Amino acid sequence: MTCDGLTNELLLKLDAYWRAANYLSVGQIYLRSNPLLREPLALEHIKARLLGHWGTTPGQNFIYVHLNRVIKQYDLNMIYISGPGHGGPALVANTYLEGSYTEFYPDVTQDEAGMAKLFKQFSFPGGIPSHVAPETPGSIHEGGELGYSLSHAFGAVFDNPELIVACVIGDGEAETGPLATAWHSNKFLNPASDGAVLPILHLNGFKIANPTILARMGHDQLAALMRGYGYEPFFVEGDDPATMHLLMASTLDTVVGRIKEIQRAARTDGCSGVPAWPMIVLRSPKGWTGPKVVDGLQIEGTCRSHQIPLTEGPEAPSHVALLEAWMRSYRPEELFDESGRLLAELAELAPRGERRMGANPHANGGILLKALRMPDFREYAVSFASPGSVDRSDTQVLGQFLRDVIKLNEAQRNFRIFSPDETASNRLSAVFEATSKQWLAPIEANDEHLAAEGRVIEMLSEHQCEGWLEGYLLTGRHGLLNSYEAFIHIVDSMFNQHAKWLKETRDIPWRRPIASLNYLLASHVWRQDHNGFTHQDPGFIDHVVNKKAEIVRVYLPPDANCLLSVMDHCLRSTHYVNVVVAGKHPAPQWLGIDAAVAHCSAGIGMWEWASNDQDGEPDVVMACAGDVPTLETLAAVQYLRQSLPELKIRVVNVVDLMKLQPSSEHPHGLSDYDFDTLFTKNKHVIFAFHGYPWLIHRLTYRRTNHANLHVRGYKEEGTITTPFDMAVLNDLDRFHLATDVIDRLPQLGSRAAHLEQALRDKLFEHRQYINEYGEDMPEIQNWKWELS
Amino acid sequence: MTCDGLTNELLLKLDAYWRAANYLSVGQIYLRSNPLLREPLALEHIKARLLGHWGTTPGQNFIYVHLNRVIKQYDLNMIYISGPGHGGPALVANTYLEGSYTEFYPDVTQDEAGMAKLFKQFSFPGGIPSHVAPETPGSIHEGGELGYSLSHAFGAVFDNPELIVACVIGDGEAETGPLATAWHSNKFLNPASDGAVLPILHLNGFKIANPTILARMGHDQLAALMRGYGYEPFFVEGDDPATMHLLMASTLDTVVGRIKEIQRAARTDGCSGVPAWPMIVLRSPKGWTGPKVVDGLQIEGTCRSHQIPLTEGPEAPSHVALLEAWMRSYRPEELFDESGRLLAELAELAPRGERRMGANPHANGGILLKALRMPDFREYAVSFASPGSVDRSDTQVLGQFLRDVIKLNEAQRNFRIFSPDETASNRLSAVFEATSKQWLAPIEANDEHLAAEGRVIEMLSEHQCEGWLEGYLLTGRHGLLNSYEAFIHIVDSMFNQHAKWLKETRDIPWRRPIASLNYLLASHVWRQDHNGFTHQDPGFIDHVVNKKAEIVRVYLPPDANCLLSVMDHCLRSTHYVNVVVAGKHPAPQWLGIDAAVAHCSAGIGMWEWASNDQDGEPDVVMACAGDVPTLETLAAVQYLRQSLPELKIRVVNVVDLMKLQPSSEHPHGLSDYDFDTLFTKNKHVIFAFHGYPWLIHRLTYRRTNHANLHVRGYKEEGTITTPFDMAVLNDLDRFHLATDVIDRLPQLGSRAAHLEQALRDKLFEHRQYINEYGEDMPEIQNWKWELS
Repeated sequence: MTCDGLTNELLLKLDAYWRAANYLSVGQIYLRSNPLLREPLALEHIKARLLGHWGTTPGQNFIYVHLNRVIKQYDLNMIYISGPGHGGPALVANTYLEGSYTEFYPDVTQDEAGMAKLFKQFSFPGGIPSHVAPETPGSIHEGGELGYSLSHAFGAVFDNPELIVACVIGDGEAETGPLATAWHSNKFLNPASDGAVLPILHLNGFKIANPTILARMGHDQLAALMRGYGYEPFFVEGDDPATMHLLMASTLDTVVGRIKEIQRAARTDGCSGVPAWPMIVLRSPKGWTGPKVVDGLQIEGTCRSHQIPLTEGPEAPSHVALLEAWMRSYRPEELFDESGRLLAELAELAPRGERRMGANPHANGGILLKALRMPDFREYAVSFASPGSVDRSDTQVLGQFLRDVIKLNEAQRNFRIFSPDETASNRLSAVFEATSKQWLAPIEANDEHLAAEGRVIEMLSEHQCEGWLEGYLLTGRHGLLNSYEAFIHIVDSMFNQHAKWLKETRDIPWRRPIASLNYLLASHVWRQDHNGFTHQDPGFIDHVVNKKAEIVRVYLPPDANCLLSVMDHCLRSTHYVNVVVAGKHPAPQWLGIDAAVAHCSAGIGMWEWASNDQDGEPDVVMACAGDVPTLETLAAVQYLRQSLPELKIRVVNVVDLMKLQPSSEHPHGLSDYDFDTLFTKNKHVIFAFHGYPWLIHRLTYRRTNHANLHVRGYKEEGTITTPFDMAVLNDLDRFHLATDVIDRLPQLGSRAAHLEQALRDKLFEHRQYINEYGEDMPEIQNWKWELS
Repeated sequence: MTCDGLTNELLLKLDAYWRAANYLSVGQIYLRSNPLLREPLALEHIKARLLGHWGTTPGQNFIYVHLNRVIKQYDLNMIYISGPGHGGPALVANTYLEGSYTEFYPDVTQDEAGMAKLFKQFSFPGGIPSHVAPETPGSIHEGGELGYSLSHAFGAVFDNPELIVACVIGDGEAETGPLATAWHSNKFLNPASDGAVLPILHLNGFKIANPTILARMGHDQLAALMRGYGYEPFFVEGDDPATMHLLMASTLDTVVGRIKEIQRAARTDGCSGVPAWPMIVLRSPKGWTGPKVVDGLQIEGTCRSHQIPLTEGPEAPSHVALLEAWMRSYRPEELFDESGRLLAELAELAPRGERRMGANPHANGGILLKALRMPDFREYAVSFASPGSVDRSDTQVLGQFLRDVIKLNEAQRNFRIFSPDETASNRLSAVFEATSKQWLAPIEANDEHLAAEGRVIEMLSEHQCEGWLEGYLLTGRHGLLNSYEAFIHIVDSMFNQHAKWLKETRDIPWRRPIASLNYLLASHVWRQDHNGFTHQDPGFIDHVVNKKAEIVRVYLPPDANCLLSVMDHCLRSTHYVNVVVAGKHPAPQWLGIDAAVAHCSAGIGMWEWASNDQDGEPDVVMACAGDVPTLETLAAVQYLRQSLPELKIRVVNVVDLMKLQPSSEHPHGLSDYDFDTLFTKNKHVIFAFHGYPWLIHRLTYRRTNHANLHVRGYKEEGTITTPFDMAVLNDLDRFHLATDVIDRLPQLGSRAAHLEQALRDKLFEHRQYINEYGEDMPEIQNWKWELS
């Protein structure tokens, strides 16, 4: 007996279990047959293409085996996040050993035939990816793009007070920006009402082609860094398996004790500050237990073991023998019985049922998903006598709705709002009537809306907000990220990976749909008069629509009632990425709530109250998408209709951008018939668009009337100027839009020519006025819709 | 005398200079006239729209004034990077006081009339942005999107051994991921051959709406964090100006001494390890010296002073008196003479000439730019008897060229390659014949190509690589970032900001063009057979083409000789962002070097050797862009021509993607006449594209023959599979492309129908084969171009 029940016998069994996992990992990378080496290994047993990453795998197997022990010992509710990612063989091997793999994939039985399938399918066409993937039981984090493991881990444990996420962080991944700031997540974690993250920084020393920074920093500096981040570091360092087993086991005992003590203190005595959560630094050789030296070059402990330490093939026949010796070094005959099944005395080391990390329901969040309790969004509607007669901030109205979403789900504790310091700036402050911003660091006298528990979390890092929200959603909860439109590009790549995860999981029968990832992009391109050119970029939409049509949705509600209707829909939806772009500045309101619901349900529609083509075909269609383009379009329509009453104008507004695509391309897409009915087959269409104009062309190039479609949008012109001048700089303003109509309808004749001159004069007057006064002309500021 | 010549008199003068800068900062934010308060302040003197950020400004003024002192005292060559960014008024005020502003903008004279202009133009239509911007003298870093200051600072000092960059880091910005990992830049900085960065972490405590994490961590934890990152922290904390002046001045003396000693030691005795560079933590109140309490709410020292602490206007007339009192508290009458010019005794505190931070040539890198010495790229050409007869890795060939670019510019020390751990993986290893990877951390026995000085820098952070390269280019040098294609999205937002900088600086006469930012995206979407779906995203091109046409260039060289020609062009170019996508796996070579040069110069062209329409109009055009699409197109052409010799096929290859756009949209765009000549006005065009197919439609929707354009490209289908199967999954393979032709030419009749059946059989055979063997059929692997 060593300590805490760590008998020599148990340590030997842990080692045997670890060898079994290592054996299965090597087998996955190399073998297409002869899984138990019943016959001498030959070239024909080896895959033609060797793909996979050995380097990180034995270390992760080591961690998994030891986590199994403490799960059983302390009855922990734990999931495993594999940051290094490419260690797919480790997670597959361990979930196979514990039995969860076979439950999800009954074909891959726990016997020799199943093991053969397990080996062959790995990194093989029609099989499974080489890294931890949606297909991997127990995973909520895909290996591939690196840097988000720790953010996902913290997102997973918010509001899951009984959950511990063991988060293995690769020392390569640790160099990325997102990971480097994710350590600060501890400032936002409530030890009473949230769960715990156990970061395990795995120093195996090398990336693909270089040593890692953290592995070469020296013990004291690394300890200082971890203490600086606010953690209590525990070091497990070495390469002798027996010593390491003892050290890891006793360290885990200590660390679990620390976590339980922090939680007990907070849950009994209340939260006070940011506790020094424990974390583990595991330093073990890269490619541990693999070939030491091959062809005269050191492999174990260098970056040469990152991927495939032995490259088989006719050109290196001696490697077959090396591979066989390597695999036999794990003594498979001591691990598996005659049928190829793990010996019962070893199998009992794994936890049971849902305590197995491959079967923990938190890692398949859809099965835990509870619908939000939703207030009736109609109760927050703006009411007014006629279109354009009142001004409101759209997001401010939405804030009241979100406040009550928070209230209604306070007991369920399954809804959160994340933002990079912008919830108030985005005018959603009403939520602070119902909740606070969660913040565990010291709170001072003049701070507002900070508390140890709250539904809003803000940190100046889009990466963190996105990563936390993803982790929160993937474990079966709901949420929203609100951000400035331009800077959401910071997480372009994270969006990519999440969208790919959603696409893949649609085809995995045991994965259940999760809540949609909702982006609310306020503070958009047209109202950066305060911040200027650097804050102007509406291209996130362009980025999003490159992903699979069944996953992405883009909404541009033109006013508050439409925003309410859209957000209600988004919060109820599952398994999408919803992008909602909305204005925050007071602006005219167009649709009563019933009209808004009808319009948003259709996603696109004619605005008859603004059109005058009721008795036939229009002369021109004026289309718009987005709040500012809608305002400018309506102002242009009013100029035109007042000056040229004989001109028949149809106004079309687009809320759901995907309606523009052919129905063959997107499930929301209009049929060609419906599209032609709205946009006509042969009339000019002046389209004022919120984003880059080419996106509209991209979505509509197959439509009948595409040649007559003229799009105005953001064309990278902007600076600090007045709100209206931003539209002018990009030719999206009412005067340019009206001119666009006149230019395309020569039949309008001399009255139109006069109007065109008047519009030019207006633009000149505007320029003069803002240069002198620095604000928009009263005529612009006070403009109202006057037609009925 | 206190220490180091810090007399009381000097400290009083520093304070006066600081007051002058603060006065000018407040004036910029608020006043449109009456700049010296010659008359009592009235509402009419105040701007209608108040835009700007006061919070960070006084602290930055404080830093600038003190840096001026040490520049003079020690004759330092220093530039200033303002990370918080929105403190634009500070940099404008200080460059105005030191005289550099007036040299660049002669209209803004150093007298009352000039001061009035200085005030009015700030954050005013037609004026200057509210944050540090390209328009700001001395700036290489735009305030706006936060997080990149420290990466830019290190990029600027690489190979500038005499330069010190004082990098002010906001405590908000410090929460971002990119900034959090940028501290690790010290592991890559050579104290002998590079300059020094002096990070000044400015803790003013608050972001827009929240306290900052770093300000609430506590002294010891923050010190541990900085030591963990490897720095020696010096704390300057307080709010009493007199005390703070003395503390800041003596700290800067110490810190400059430390920098000089580190450099002396390394330059005399050689480098050994990562030195503990000094850094300063400056903790001062947000909105320091501004209004303390307004309307009963504390302002100074809270986030209420972040933007505009007093909101004037008719609704708050009492604020006018508060503003006047605030401005008069700086005692302008003691600072400026009758004409409105800074008193001579204060003006002499600023450095002279190019030592002024607003006039340092390193901050206007174009004037220091020296063209690279270029080897003749033709000497690296692949030669072969006929198209497709040899296979080469395109990037491997390029590596040899880059190796010699490095060699030829070793003495100039103005070329660097940055990569997130992928230079070798991208097959550019030939560069290591000429140089090493720069790495100051410990080097161990099995490390390869690491040294204290080297032209390549690798860290597993795309953010760092991008930020370093930008800093390096902005200070007048050349470089290249090589990365995996999918993960370059990580820096989408950084690219945005750099492209915006380039656009803006084109219109600033005193800014000279800098070297282009060159991306080499190898390891692209079609050859992620190893890594699978997460590594597949060709959308960076889509993102890039949203920016201004005069800035962005996209190249898709189909083989090694074209890649050589393209890269030679990119490395010679200035003021663009060049995106080059290239293959790294051995693949057929098509064009001899002369043909490649001609083809790349044209950017697009007919490949007559592959076409059989020489005697007239083609029946179909088969277009391609990218190495894999080109291969698959040629294979399809061969199938078709061999089976249906009467079918006239024209092959068009696109290297320069911008050629597809109308000439009205992009300077490289083909005229409609040329486009129609290549693509015909009425024949079907089957276009095999490297990226998302919609991009081609977006670029070509105005072309005559657009309705006949059928594009195949990546449609988010992929996994770990064989190289050829990736094409099959996305319908881009030879069999699908040939079928596309047959489907659109019903006149081909029964022989074509038989061929179509054969193509379907091939696809079936392919699927069977890879499922069994895990690699492509020999027929695919060994395919050769056989026509002549």
